[in-house]
Amino acid sequence: MPYVNIRITREGATAEQKALLIKGATQLLVDVLGKNPATTVVVIDEVETDNWGIGGESVTTLRKRKS
Amino acid sequence: MPYVNIRITREGATAEQKALLIKGATQLLVDVLGKNPATTVVVIDEVETDNWGIGGESVTTLRKRKS
Amino acid sequence: MPYVNIRITREGATAEQKALLIKGATQLLVDVLGKNPATTVVVIDEVETDNWGIGGESVTTLRKRKS
Amino acid sequence: MPYVNIRITREGATAEQKALLIKGATQLLVDVLGKNPATTVVVIDEVETDNWGIGGESVTTLRKRKS
Amino acid sequence: MPYVNIRITREGATAEQKALLIKGATQLLVDVLGKNPATTVVVIDEVETDNWGIGGESVTTLRKRKS
Amino acid sequence: MPYVNIRITREGATAEQKALLIKGATQLLVDVLGKNPATTVVVIDEVETDNWGIGGESVTTLRKRKS
Repeated sequence: MPYVNIRITREGATAEQKALLIKGATQLLVDVLGKNPATTVVVIDEVETDNWGIGGESVTTLRKRKS
Repeated sequence: MPYVNIRITREGATAEQKALLIKGATQLLVDVLGKNPATTVVVIDEVETDNWGIGGESVTTLRKRKS
Repeated sequence: MPYVNIRITREGATAEQKALLIKGATQLLVDVLGKNPATTVVVIDEVETDNWGIGGESVTTLRKRKS
Repeated sequence: MPYVNIRITREGATAEQKALLIKGATQLLVDVLGKNPATTVVVIDEVETDNWGIGGESVTTLRKRKS
Repeated sequence: MPYVNIRITREGATAEQKALLIKGATQLLVDVLGKNPATTVVVIDEVETDNWGIGGESVTTLRKRKS
Repeated sequence: MPYVNIRITREGATAEQKALLIKGATQLLVDVLGKNPATTVVVIDEVETDNWGIGGESVTTLRKRKS
């Protein structure tokens, strides 16, 4: 019955990688708390780099400075 | 003043259906708790089927197996 | 498979009222989008009035002014 | 370490405006609670007007009525 | 930089179990997407069983029926 | 109409500080995007330090190491 929301920047995660996140997060709840995987929901939100900030700056700006 | 967030997979919900979700969720808060509809906010998030998992698998994978 | 999050101020909602919110939100998704109720999750968050703001003020402050 | 999620309707906010939201929300946490900006995360979600409801109606419908 | 929100019912998860969820979710993002663990945030919400519904009923009701 | 969710660790924020967060976040949306403060909602979640992780460890553990 758990609900897991994974929020990442939209920077090219593939369907295969997202499937691994879903599988891994579900298994984590099974392993640690004995939750039922059948009713464990995982939702991945991919967020534009303009819309994600850390340290007071957008990831778009941070990526530009580093490159 | 309530805030309702409805998260569904993006599989073709129409503007009319989304209007019904907004209307119905708002009315539910009025009916059950006497909340003021004028300040009741409903936000619908439509999530790609690759990004929604249940039972450790993405909805994309589940849909393929069933078809 | 939908996930519905209802956020309200903590002001004495009873277990019966919360059961009605769960039942009503689940039925709404069934009626409007034909979703499967068995995997529809509803989570209610009750938030202290000090922690909920509207119009730039906490609900605690708003309630005091009205009384 | 705080996490701030700002949800607005998708109605043309520019990258510059979103950078100001990130900067301002981060600074608010620094000023009020002395939080470390380096680990303060701000995520902005822009939501289609069909998907945002207030007063039981979508913002799309509200905007049409006003115009 | 990812943000992971794990929502479970409040049914006695220990600090040790919650530490394992934090460690495991962080490692998952490192392994699958190469994310930096130093800025990966995990937040666990424990929700009263009266406030969590599945299948149109609260977990409180579901637990009673099974016992 | 914006919705702002501020999530912080529960470490003694006062009602006055939370009122400042509500006021400041609301004003930020007014200043940057011209939003209507009357329908701007701010919700603050205070999370136990056992339930908040960064760098793969709970804040409880991080605080102990530093002290």
